[in-house]
Order: sequence, then structure tokens, then C-alpha cells
Amino acid sequence: MDKTRIGIVGYGNLGRGTELAIRQTPDTVLSCVFTRRDPSSLKILTDNVPVYSINDIENHKNDVDVLILCGGSATDLPVQGPKLAEMFCTIDSFDTHAKIPEYFPAVDAAAKKGGNVSIISVGWDPGMFSVARLYGSCILPDGKDYTFWGKGVSQGHSDAIRRIEGVADAKQYTIPVEAAIEAVRSGSNPELTTRQKHTRECFVVAKEGADKAKIESEIKNMPNYFADYDTTVHFISQEELNRDHSGIPHGGFVIRSGQTGVNGETKHIVEYSLKLGSNPEFTSSILVAYARAAYKLHKEGASGAKTVFDIPPAYLSPKSGEELRATML
Amino acid sequence: MDKTRIGIVGYGNLGRGTELAIRQTPDTVLSCVFTRRDPSSLKILTDNVPVYSINDIENHKNDVDVLILCGGSATDLPVQGPKLAEMFCTIDSFDTHAKIPEYFPAVDAAAKKGGNVSIISVGWDPGMFSVARLYGSCILPDGKDYTFWGKGVSQGHSDAIRRIEGVADAKQYTIPVEAAIEAVRSGSNPELTTRQKHTRECFVVAKEGADKAKIESEIKNMPNYFADYDTTVHFISQEELNRDHSGIPHGGFVIRSGQTGVNGETKHIVEYSLKLGSNPEFTSSILVAYARAAYKLHKEGASGAKTVFDIPPAYLSPKSGEELRATML
Repeated sequence: MDKTRIGIVGYGNLGRGTELAIRQTPDTVLSCVFTRRDPSSLKILTDNVPVYSINDIENHKNDVDVLILCGGSATDLPVQGPKLAEMFCTIDSFDTHAKIPEYFPAVDAAAKKGGNVSIISVGWDPGMFSVARLYGSCILPDGKDYTFWGKGVSQGHSDAIRRIEGVADAKQYTIPVEAAIEAVRSGSNPELTTRQKHTRECFVVAKEGADKAKIESEIKNMPNYFADYDTTVHFISQEELNRDHSGIPHGGFVIRSGQTGVNGETKHIVEYSLKLGSNPEFTSSILVAYARAAYKLHKEGASGAKTVFDIPPAYLSPKSGEELRATML
Repeated sequence: MDKTRIGIVGYGNLGRGTELAIRQTPDTVLSCVFTRRDPSSLKILTDNVPVYSINDIENHKNDVDVLILCGGSATDLPVQGPKLAEMFCTIDSFDTHAKIPEYFPAVDAAAKKGGNVSIISVGWDPGMFSVARLYGSCILPDGKDYTFWGKGVSQGHSDAIRRIEGVADAKQYTIPVEAAIEAVRSGSNPELTTRQKHTRECFVVAKEGADKAKIESEIKNMPNYFADYDTTVHFISQEELNRDHSGIPHGGFVIRSGQTGVNGETKHIVEYSLKLGSNPEFTSSILVAYARAAYKLHKEGASGAKTVFDIPPAYLSPKSGEELRATML
């Protein structure tokens, strides 16, 4: 079998998850890893796969069929995405929803210039949750969407707590409010405020002598991050944090509540939910499936930026259309 | 706006549902209805829409952009599907899973000959459930699929009971076993027998003087339909059946349970579920969304048979790619 050769850019949680996801697919192979660090300092899990400096990436265009960009959306991808799309077919998990309308055309222009296919904003939100929202709204046009996140670790909120004076370490969980989910599932189409949809739970390690009451108040009143939520703060030791909160679980729910009939008298509920042991490992499994799709499209002569909305589900599979119809339809 | 003109073939539950679904979309319009009955005897819900005999369908090729075939899979579609695909872009809900491998090429050849796009086996199973199974298996290749149906009315099983001697009327519900669903959700990847996954509940109206014990025994021991299930039988009056069991609700669950990590140590659960007030109204809402997709593909020059696996999600939407990226990604 002609395997799709994948290159990884950035070897953090997402990069390692991608390396593991490639091992689970018979039709893709890890070709190389690109890093900003000194390549000789980086030990990856797979034997006999070279690690190169990101600065040399242009010299490896012929070693890679699809490049999976595992950097962050804040500063890495806005630069790397358009730059690398000109040289390679790429997949990224750009997740700054508000900036997608400017990121997409930048990547699109570069990918078209290079004759490559680049699928942006791949993952579960944006990604699988977006697909669930789209299918739901197309099938039940008279209806309402609800997205709940969690229970899971929010990296951004954990970071925000860590920046508070007196905090040594912290982990924040986003938790959907069960009563709100049940109200949505009942078909009552409730209007829900931010506070009614999610609560936030924080596990904080305070530095010695720090003012815990002040830390708690700063967290609970932090604008955007916590002020609009019911937030609970638990102070624990570093040992407890390491022991009980080292995982990166996440998940959530997309629910479409809609009505049909002569006067909307028939109610329907469509629900898509995820319960993830590891957010980065699940996200990278999605990235690898879309890498397969990008390469198929590229071989068909397509080019330009795409999103999950543009990819036929069959393109994610290593199986033929005939096999899929016989076994999965 | 240039509306997609839809023709309906067959005006039963699915045809009526399709008529209602078209009303909910701003970009499609019901052009005409084709029936096997005397057209003058058929009163449809929409004013000023003509009803024609199915025998005259060839004369109306220019009145219709996409034809939605609302006949049954047992005898109607195997004949109509290939025949009409040569004249029109078509959508159908062919749901005999085992016969899809022969139905697809028959429709494909006809659609290609006519230069049309025909999307077959559209609905929720096959259809949305198939898409959920496909996404799940591509994202978590190391895992297991589970499909549960219900609680809902099975038309085929209700019909089978009605054919028993002494039965005046009947309704059968397929019910998923909650304990089995919970076992799957726990990530334990259980092996489940037919009996462990679903139970069957029957509401039966016996004819006067009929032997109820014999009817109950015949139901419970009917091969394929009931013998492999725990089945309960309730005898009720026709009035009770009409009052309490006239709806056609359905639903179900597709769950992908998979693992990632170095040694499969990380568990993930992906769940897609439906709770439908009316099986035919929901199914026909899906048919109309795919009619939109078929017409877009046809305008792009595509032809041949397709399934839900081949259709990019964006094609189901009346919105542009730019709008979708800005609002739904």
C-alpha cells in the first residue's frame, strides 16, 4: 500500500497525540517531525524517524505528503498556516472562532499559489461539533442549537489563574449544568444565560504565605474568564494537583432542538456528545483522518483552503466507496 | 432567489412529510406531486400545486429540479430508483441495507446515462446514523461501533403481527435496553447479543372470540421478528390503540467507543442520538436537505449515484461557505 507520509510541526501534546494517532492507521506513516527546539535535544516515541529544525522545512518538501501543524492558534498558526500552505498540503486546528474569517482567505491564497490543499480548524470544536451544528441546522431548519462544553480542562482558564499573584499552579474545569442540558433535551427551547449553561471549578496551589481569600476573589471576579459564571475555588497541595488533576479530559454536547409538522407541533432532538479521556489525543486523531482526506483531494487536483464543512465523510476513510456502502451505510 | 423545484413521487407519510419540510426551507419549492392513484382524488396540503399521474412523469421533466422518491424499499424503489434516475436528479430513502450493493450500481448507471445526480439511502438509518458510524470509525480506528434503535414504532414488526390470525390491529415498539447503553457508554466495549440490546413491546387488538394465548405465543415465537428478543404483549381495545398509539415516534443511538494512547490506555466515547416525534417527518426533512445538495452537484456538472458518505456537509446548507465559516464553524 502507498502510505500517506505525514510530517508533524511542533512536538507538544498535540504533536505527540498525532504521532500516536498515525500508529493506529494502516495507511499513514510518520515521515518526520519539525521543531523550534534543537532537533538533537528532542526524543520522540517512534524509532528511526528524523527530527528536523523548523528552519529547514523547505528542504523537506519531497519527504512529506501532508503536514500537520500542531502549534497554537494565538501566535503560531496565524504565521505558519499561510506560510506552510504554500509549500505543503496542511492540516491545522486553528480554533480562534472569531478570526477564522480572516485566517481562511490567507491560507486559501497560499494553498492555491502552491497547488496544495489545506484543511483549517480541524478538531472537535471547531470541527466535529461544527459538523454536528451544520447537519442539525440543515435537517431541522426551524430549531435552535445548543453547545455545552465539559466536563473538561480549559487550558486558557487554567493559564489565567496561574498568572494571579500568589498562585503556584492551577487547573480549571468547565462543567455543563445538568439541569440546562435536561431542559434542552426536553424540547422546551429555553433561553439560557452564560451562567445557566456552565459552572467553573478551580483547583489552585497557593504559594507559601499567599493571601488565599484575595486569590479566590481575583479568580471569581476576573472579567470574561470567570465573572459571568458560578465559580468554585479549592485550594490544594501541589502533590494533590499532580495526583488528581494531571489528565486532560474534555467533552461536550451539541444539541439541535427542532420542530416539524403543519404548525411545528412535532418535536425532534438531535444530540452529538463527546466524552474524551484526552483532549489532545482525540483532537490529533481527527487531524490524521483529515490528513488522509487532504491528500486524496490533492491527488484529484484540488487546491486551496477547506474546512470540515467541505470534506465528504467518505474522504476520511481508508476504505473504498464500495466497501463503505456494503459495511457501514 | 432561484428556488430548487422539488417533485414528490408517492403521497404517503413520507410524501406528506416532504411537503411539510419544503415549507420550512426558503430556497426550495414544491413543484408537483406524482401518484399512482387517480390524481383528481388526491387532496394535498399545499394550494395551487398540481398532482399528476405517475404514468405521465416523463412529460414533466422540465418542471422539476429534483425528484424525491417517497415509495417503499421492498417493491417501489428497486424499480422506480433506476428508472427515474435516468430522467431526473433523485433522492430516495432506500433502506434495505443488504441490497444497497446491488441498488447503487443500478441507479448509478441510469443517473450517469441521464446526466443526473441521484443520492440513495438518505434518511437516518441508513443516513445520519451511517454518517455517525463513518466519522466515528475514521476518528477512532481502534474501537467498536454500537447502534441502538428506539424507543420507536417498527412498521415492519407491526405489520407482521397484523398478519397473525385473530389480530385486528397492532403496534410494535422497539426499545433499547438501558443497561446495555450504559455498559457501552462506560467504555467497557461489551459483546452484546441481540436479546441484550433491544426488547420488543406489542400492543395488540384481538378480534372478537380470538384465542389470545395463541396470538401471544405466535408473536413471541415468530422467527427473525420476535424469537430472539424478550417480547411483551398487551391486549388492548381498538379505541385505546387509536388514542395512545397513533404516533410514529422513533429514535436511537450510535455510539463509538474507542481508545488512543501508547497502549490504548485513553478511552473516548462519541455518541450521536435522535429522539424523534415523527419518524417520517424527520426522514423527509433529511431528504429535502439532500435534494438541495443533489441540485448543487448537478449544476456543477456531477452525475451518477451518491450516498450520504459522498456529500460534503456544506452542500446541505442554503448558506455560502463564507457565512457558514463565520457563523457555524
